[in-house]
Order: sequence, then C-alpha cells, then structure tokens
Amino acid sequence: MGSYKHSPRIRNRPKLTLEDVRKSHITREALIALHETPGVGDLAICAVVQYGMSHPQRLLQDAVSLKAGDWREMGLSDRQCESIVDSFSPEARQRRARRCREGGIGIMTFLDERYSPLLREIADPPWVLYYRGNWELAHRPAVAIVGTRQATAYGRKVAEELAAGCSRRMTVVSGLARGIDTAAHQGAVRGAYGTIGVLATPVDQCYPPENRRIYEDIAANGLLLSETMPDASFHPGLFPMRNRVIAGLSMGVVVVEAAGKSGALITADLAIDYDRDVFIVPGPISSPRSKGALEYFRKGAIPVLDESDIFGMYEHRLPRDNRILNASKSAPANANASPELSQEEQILYELLLDHPCSVDELAEKSGMTFGLLQSVLLSLLIKRRVHQQPGSVYKVL
Amino acid sequence: MGSYKHSPRIRNRPKLTLEDVRKSHITREALIALHETPGVGDLAICAVVQYGMSHPQRLLQDAVSLKAGDWREMGLSDRQCESIVDSFSPEARQRRARRCREGGIGIMTFLDERYSPLLREIADPPWVLYYRGNWELAHRPAVAIVGTRQATAYGRKVAEELAAGCSRRMTVVSGLARGIDTAAHQGAVRGAYGTIGVLATPVDQCYPPENRRIYEDIAANGLLLSETMPDASFHPGLFPMRNRVIAGLSMGVVVVEAAGKSGALITADLAIDYDRDVFIVPGPISSPRSKGALEYFRKGAIPVLDESDIFGMYEHRLPRDNRILNASKSAPANANASPELSQEEQILYELLLDHPCSVDELAEKSGMTFGLLQSVLLSLLIKRRVHQQPGSVYKVL
Repeated sequence: MGSYKHSPRIRNRPKLTLEDVRKSHITREALIALHETPGVGDLAICAVVQYGMSHPQRLLQDAVSLKAGDWREMGLSDRQCESIVDSFSPEARQRRARRCREGGIGIMTFLDERYSPLLREIADPPWVLYYRGNWELAHRPAVAIVGTRQATAYGRKVAEELAAGCSRRMTVVSGLARGIDTAAHQGAVRGAYGTIGVLATPVDQCYPPENRRIYEDIAANGLLLSETMPDASFHPGLFPMRNRVIAGLSMGVVVVEAAGKSGALITADLAIDYDRDVFIVPGPISSPRSKGALEYFRKGAIPVLDESDIFGMYEHRLPRDNRILNASKSAPANANASPELSQEEQILYELLLDHPCSVDELAEKSGMTFGLLQSVLLSLLIKRRVHQQPGSVYKVL
Repeated sequence: MGSYKHSPRIRNRPKLTLEDVRKSHITREALIALHETPGVGDLAICAVVQYGMSHPQRLLQDAVSLKAGDWREMGLSDRQCESIVDSFSPEARQRRARRCREGGIGIMTFLDERYSPLLREIADPPWVLYYRGNWELAHRPAVAIVGTRQATAYGRKVAEELAAGCSRRMTVVSGLARGIDTAAHQGAVRGAYGTIGVLATPVDQCYPPENRRIYEDIAANGLLLSETMPDASFHPGLFPMRNRVIAGLSMGVVVVEAAGKSGALITADLAIDYDRDVFIVPGPISSPRSKGALEYFRKGAIPVLDESDIFGMYEHRLPRDNRILNASKSAPANANASPELSQEEQILYELLLDHPCSVDELAEKSGMTFGLLQSVLLSLLIKRRVHQQPGSVYKVL
C-alpha cells in the first residue's frame, strides 16, 4: 500500500488561523458576502484575508463600500471584482439575509466564537456555514459514521445500532445520503448527544427527497448544516467539499461498508489528512460492499465491533457514561427543578452544587472537552445559574 | 479487554533448551520410551532431564538398564517407576517400534537435528512427535489457518481461498477438524508449500472419519503429525495439546470464524503466549460465528483480507513468489496494450501534456502528496506513457 489511493484531498490552500483572520480586519458581513458572491471561492477569500493581514490601513473594516479597483489590488480578477461589487450592494445583501431569515437558516462564520473548534483546526475550514437546528451539537465530542449509498441490510443494521450506541456519549455526524448515512442518522437522532447532518445541497433543501422524514427529524432534534448558500445551484464538486466538513467536525470517521470508489472513502482519506482517526466496521472480505472499507485496515484503520471501541479511543475527552445515564434517568425530576437546563448544563450545575470549581476541575470531573465545557459554562452564565469568580472559578447562583 | 480469556495456556514447565537436554545425556530411545510410558507426562520427563543435567555420572546414557530405585531417585512416584521399568523392557520397546514401522509412522524427538526449529522455541515443545508424510514441511515457513468446526459457507470459502494463496509461499498448518480446518487443508494441499495436519488422535487414525479423503491426501502430499503415540486412548485434553503444536509450528495463526468458545481461540491464545502473530479474517460483526475471532482485534490481532497481509509480515523470511516475479516481468507488455489510465495518472499525464515538469512543479500543480506523486509517476513510467529526463523532469512519450 504505502500511499493513500484518494489522497490528497486537502486543497493547496494557505492555513489561516482565527488570529490571522482577525488581523485582516475583515468583518463577518464581508466574509458572508464574499462567500455568497458567484465566482469567488475559498482561495479568493484567502487572498483577500492575506491582503488585509499585510496592509495596515484596515481596508476590510469597511469592505461593503470598496470599489472594484480596491478588490483588484488584492489580486482578484476583473470578473470577480465586478461580481463582488454587485454582491455587496445593500439590496443584494438584504435580499440574501431575508432569504435566510425566512428559511429559518442560521449563519456561522469562521470569525464567530461559536464556530466548531474541531472544524477550525483543519487545513481548509469553511468560511461560512448555514445551519438549521441546534448549533450546540457542533460543540459536542463527535464521531462521523458514513458509508455506501448501496448498503446491504447488514450494513444498515450495523450503522443504525452503532450510531445509537455512540450517541449516548458522542454526537454522530453523517452526510444524510441514502444507505449507511441515513441509517446512522436514524440510530442517533434520539440519542442523548444527537446527530448532525451535513448537506452538500443548501440546508433548507432535502436531498435525496425520500429522506424528508429523517431530514425534518434532524432539523427539529439535531443540527443540519451546509457550506452551500440557499438557492445555490448544485454541482458534484460539492460532495467532496461536504465530506471535508463531516471529517472536520469529528474526532474520528467510522466507515460501515464502502465499495472501492465510495465517497465515504474520500471522507476517510480526509480524516487521515486531518490527523483524525479512521475506524472500519468489519464485514465479509468477499463482499464488494465491504472491500473498499476493509482495505483501510492496511492503512492502520481501527476495527470497530461496537461503540466501546470508539469510546475507548477518546475516553479522557468524553463525558462519563454513568453520569449521562443517571442524568437522563432522573431527567423528569430535574426538569421540574430547572426546566430550562440542557443535559450538559445539568451535569455541570450538579457538579457545582457540591462546591465551586475551576474550569480545570470541571473538565476533569465532567470529562467534557474544553470547547464543550466553555460553551456550556457560557450558557449557564447567560441563564444566570452560575457565577464566574476571579481565577475562572465557577459557583452556583 | 486487557487479559486474555483463555490464557495462560502454557503449562508451568521448566524451559529446557536442546543444550540442556544434551547435557542430561538422555538418549533418543529413552525419551521415546519415557513418552510412551503410561502415567509419565511432560513434567516427569522434565524432572528426569533436570536430574541428568545436575548429576555428572551420566546415568541416563544407559537409561534402559536402570532399576526402579534409580528412577525413584529422580523424583518420580513408585507407580511411575514401576511403569517405566515395564515400558523399558526390550520386548515392550520392540513391540512399539514394530507398530510404528508397520504403520508407516516416523518418530521425531526434541533431540533430533531435524526437529522443527520454530516448535523448539516454544516454552513447552513436545518431546516426541509421530508423523506420516514429508517431514521437510516442518522446516518451511508456516502459517496456521484455524477456525470453528461449525463454519458458514463464507468461512469455508474464505479459508480455502486464503490457504491456497498462502501455500504459494508458506506451509499451511491446521488441525484437520471439521469446518475451517478441513477447508484450509483442502486449499493448501496442492500448493507449492503444502499443508501440515496436526492431529490430537494418533497419526495413523483418521478423525473425524468423514475426513478420510483429505487425510489420505495430506499423508501422500503433505505431512500429518501427532504427539499421541499409536493406539493411545483418547482424552479431550489432547485437543489443547494439539493446538499448542499448531501454534508452535507456525510464524502466525490466522483465525477464520470462531465463536466465543471455539478451540481455535485457544490456538490464538497460545500464539500470543509464544510471541507469534495472530491474524483475523474480518466477517460480519453480527455473526456469532465471527464474534469470538473479531474480539481479538481488541488484543491487537492483524486483519487479513488476503495472503498478501500475511506475506507482508514475513517478507524477509519468505521465499520469493515466482508467480509474482513472472507477472511483473510480463507487465509492461500488457500495459502497452491497454491505454487505460487511473484518475491520478490522467491528471499528471494531462499536466505533462502542456510541457515537461519537475517533480516539484507536478506536486504544486496537482496538489498531490509527494508519496502519491511518486507512485503515480512510477506507474506512468511502467505504462510507458511518460519518460524521465535528467534532473527528475518528466515528459510525455
């Protein structure tokens, strides 16, 4: 073997950190408008950000009023510059914002604090994501479960059961495609940690149409997200782009059945490139539906018999299982006492009821990732259930 | 997991090297006679050898004429001593030797130069082995292929194909049981490196009786061996004893289908104890026939998709595969005939159609990793679609 069949999937793009992007003085609004401009892609946005970083006059602070000539100076083509000026007009921006508002679509940009910390780490994170549902899921420890559209009954059953098991302690990410993806979402959507469906098509369109039911279920109980702006026209290049978001959101990617050329293997390759784990569910070596996935054992992929093989890899980064189980068992009683707390909030709240804790102590006791912990604490602060003391010590109010 | 379910299988026995045994001055004949004495087991023979090692008067050089009192001094029980004196009588020894001669049975002892070197390495090697067929097979690089008696059609097919593949470069060892073992022998018996059947019953008895055909086939074309003397009565303890010989003869043990309590897993545990490799053929995680085997992934067992996964582990210790050599010799001619290029090959080929490029330029333009680039370029060179110029510049042909 040696080299990866599908690699490299990471595009040749400069790696820009949050600090870099802040240094460019580009605004959230300009990022969204650039992303929504036809003919302006990731690389063009990188060029703009890099220009902003190296020019101290803070041109990008007021990007909406820039002229075509200003954009041209940043290295964009004539056509891109015209397109941007059109796209940045107040009417165009308002029209697009209204479209999102009316479609119940939220927008998260790379500049936002609440952007997924894991996704931010990858070499080519999306500049803008559109979402429906509960964004908090993007901060939970997550594992992707993906596979072939032409799944066998075995594959679908295994994907659903594994996803149900995983969702007790991790959010299950998948691509809402037919076959394995759908089974994974179905298994996880009722789990404590839920499921994220990452779409190649705009987030308010259900594709494939027969998945309407699980699509609505995820919108109501999980999180749907897409890098593709509403009403954008579809092209097949969106699938590998979508796959990088699936890999980027997840600590590891589990492949359940994939033939040699399955798109799920692109996701697996991306996971390898992003230094995430690849897990393979064993299947018959004689099955063409399993063969592509099984080959990844030769690249060091980890065999998965059930969710314990995945939890075992991330034990120190996951919430404790029994705590979750107890929390969900006693949920009705707790719900009376504090009707507005989520399960994670409840866990931290109960820990703090014992005595005030530092963030480090809370991380250790709860087993939550730092990112999740921060977001849950923030939420508890906003809900005025806890109070932050000097030295980042938290106390119940 | 942590600890091995079936371990430890190695009996608490002193490890004696060939040099130790020589130092005891025990003779080949005495070893055989002791092994064939009812009530004298491995441990008793160890005690005798250790006595010989520490007593310079070379008592064991003429063991056949020793009295019960001499044996008693070595720490054996009264009953064992009487039994040995009976068993060492010239008549008894001649009777047993004639029995082997007439049955076409060869005897190999731990003292013999031609004893299997791999088997000699284990903690508890057999003192005496009885065999039929070609002993040379015990000196070839070997891999065991074992599994459940209650095999599925999938398991039997995979075992037979894998054994056929392995037998091109390694001898396939198995236990001649129903199911997987039989399929493995059938796959390997016509291979260049053949097959060894290790029996729990005496080597001139076919058990189970329905395996008569493969039993005779191995006797004629391979090697049958057993630690059990002819006409010995059977007891179930012989099965794990047999399994240690299977593991001991082999560089690695492949398990194809095994339920949680399959004897094949005892062989796998022994392989771990003997520091040999354990390979598992993936199967459906929902199949009870695969479950026991799949659990070994959690102990670090190596997934096997075909024989290349096994050859890869022992490449430097195996003979070259003539078929592979022949195939690669004729590859250029075949490739010339076929104009087909893979997707990556096509990408590089089209880049080079523009103008000749260095590897660095190709890496930049294609975005491929260096490793992938090298392998795709090599493949294009072999297919005679590109040509390498000085300075690692490539050009289309």
